[in-house]
Amino acid sequence: MIDPVTWKPLADGGLPGKLRLIDQTRLPRELVYVELDELDPIVDAIRRLVVRGAPAIGCAAAFGLAAVCQHSRATTVAAFLAEAGATAATLAASRPTAVNLSWALERCLAHLRQAAAAPGATPAGLKRRLLAEATAIFDEDLALSRAMGQHGLELFGGQTGVRVITHCNAGGLATSGYGTALAPIYAAQEAGLAPKVYADETRPLLQGARLTAWELQRAGVEVTVICDNMAGALMRQERIGFAIVGADRIAANGDTANKIGTYGLAILARHHGVPFYVAAPYSTIDMALADGRGIPIEQRSGEEIRRGFGCQTAPDGVATWNPAFDVTPADLIHGIVTERGILRPPFGAAIRQFMQAGDRAGAPR
Amino acid sequence: MIDPVTWKPLADGGLPGKLRLIDQTRLPRELVYVELDELDPIVDAIRRLVVRGAPAIGCAAAFGLAAVCQHSRATTVAAFLAEAGATAATLAASRPTAVNLSWALERCLAHLRQAAAAPGATPAGLKRRLLAEATAIFDEDLALSRAMGQHGLELFGGQTGVRVITHCNAGGLATSGYGTALAPIYAAQEAGLAPKVYADETRPLLQGARLTAWELQRAGVEVTVICDNMAGALMRQERIGFAIVGADRIAANGDTANKIGTYGLAILARHHGVPFYVAAPYSTIDMALADGRGIPIEQRSGEEIRRGFGCQTAPDGVATWNPAFDVTPADLIHGIVTERGILRPPFGAAIRQFMQAGDRAGAPR
Repeated sequence: MIDPVTWKPLADGGLPGKLRLIDQTRLPRELVYVELDELDPIVDAIRRLVVRGAPAIGCAAAFGLAAVCQHSRATTVAAFLAEAGATAATLAASRPTAVNLSWALERCLAHLRQAAAAPGATPAGLKRRLLAEATAIFDEDLALSRAMGQHGLELFGGQTGVRVITHCNAGGLATSGYGTALAPIYAAQEAGLAPKVYADETRPLLQGARLTAWELQRAGVEVTVICDNMAGALMRQERIGFAIVGADRIAANGDTANKIGTYGLAILARHHGVPFYVAAPYSTIDMALADGRGIPIEQRSGEEIRRGFGCQTAPDGVATWNPAFDVTPADLIHGIVTERGILRPPFGAAIRQFMQAGDRAGAPR
Repeated sequence: MIDPVTWKPLADGGLPGKLRLIDQTRLPRELVYVELDELDPIVDAIRRLVVRGAPAIGCAAAFGLAAVCQHSRATTVAAFLAEAGATAATLAASRPTAVNLSWALERCLAHLRQAAAAPGATPAGLKRRLLAEATAIFDEDLALSRAMGQHGLELFGGQTGVRVITHCNAGGLATSGYGTALAPIYAAQEAGLAPKVYADETRPLLQGARLTAWELQRAGVEVTVICDNMAGALMRQERIGFAIVGADRIAANGDTANKIGTYGLAILARHHGVPFYVAAPYSTIDMALADGRGIPIEQRSGEEIRRGFGCQTAPDGVATWNPAFDVTPADLIHGIVTERGILRPPFGAAIRQFMQAGDRAGAPR
């Protein structure tokens, strides 16, 4: 398994230690780790996409907070809490739209506040509690991924050599190491089913070609990179078992926002009778949104299209349209692979039941 | 109008002169012309895609033959013919799969043989006849494009500001200057209808971003470049009047081979109720092929995907699937814009009638 975000202990017990990241901006050319324990370099790493993918960013922020706060010279619990709060606020601002980032930091701070209220609390003890909570966030993310993988195994029906198509990178690199959309593929590989994966390169930022291909290749999974516009011809020529993608946000009715191009892939899948699946944990579901119309779509710089690879690929000043995401309507989706099974249509009822069961089970929020 | 392929006379009467090409490998960064009259540099220019697009290659080969043969020192008609035949054979081998290339050269040679048989024929006279025939090929291509443009105007229904999506470059740069798929757009622009064009960038070689965007921008047509995977989201968000693409080969039943990604675009258009048109002259129709299953699909190097922009975009050695073309089945096509009107389904009958009428009219072959 790959390790995009880890805690590197420098002594027994974990402290002191460092936040260790794979520098994803250097993939697929070279595998380079960076080790960080100061605030500015950590903010910079999140901002420059050294680490990306919502769950991975959440883990990085939590370990990052622990790494910075371990050096605190605060002599009182109150001073330590104030310092941790300020550090978390700076970290949270590094990518303000990433939901998992602020969620993970808020969870760490809430845990600290609780621990600080206990009798005999000390700054040294809070440093250990902070690392323990960050580790719990990491461990829970890994458990969610593993569970999605096991439930997603069902999609292979026990068959070997099933061809699967995916878009963007919803893999180990985007999480604690095992992925969301790629989790069932890793589970199938471990089960000896030898899945064959087609990875859309995913313009403009090429997460499929750069990251999905890299991590699958490294894991020994057979992977073939195609340009995004080849998916239709591929589905016509080859028997594709299913398509599976991650999600940035899922509305209460199952409408799913994900990387631009996901919607088109879902239409091509429907046309060819290829089942289309989304894989995402509970935290991706936004019950406050009735449907996909409420999901804001970020427009990114045209330079990603005009000069995406460091060389000019379109005329100077030509207009572009560059949405980062699109919304796939629920009626194009066959199922949503979660950590507690595959949700099936009608999604409104399935999602409501899933979220209520999670509340009862005390699922982490 | 742009001039990707022209004859540049150095004296009255056209001879001596040179083949003049826009170096399309340097677009969109800079507009550079090359002037050629020697065999090796002309072969090299065709091979390196300085000139590309079937009709443009045909014109370049014909002018190229005239440019090389003008320097012949043959003193007899027979020697001149032999020299021209050898030159044509070398030119034809520069891109062996380009149908228009060998078609144009064979037409020039046939014309030469006929002229050589006439009483009083001389090498000097044959040089003039060769240039005249090359010029005729060019003029006919331009007339075909203009006629496709006029017939394609119908697609706009007289409305201004119609949004059109296209794929790859079936424009002026691919022809004598006015295009096939872009011809109706130029005609609409000239008619004051101010069309708005969305150009798929067209991975892996980016003909849409590099060439279509460049020539439309230059002609004052409003153009917006999108990545190929954005077409679905675009059709969902904007009212797109129609999609129009060129064709590399059309079977007798209307199945159409064109740049990879065309098939996917046609499916997306169908899903959104956007009419999908192909624009192509008679010479693109291959009556020997009953349907698209017989069209061979060239597989190109994986390096176009792995290192398409001069930098590494996928892991070393990762597998790729890189077909240059795909086949769009006739049932996804609303009409084929030709130089004698728009063919409508059922295409089998429409194409048969169209080709027979062309034979009766003595259309150039």
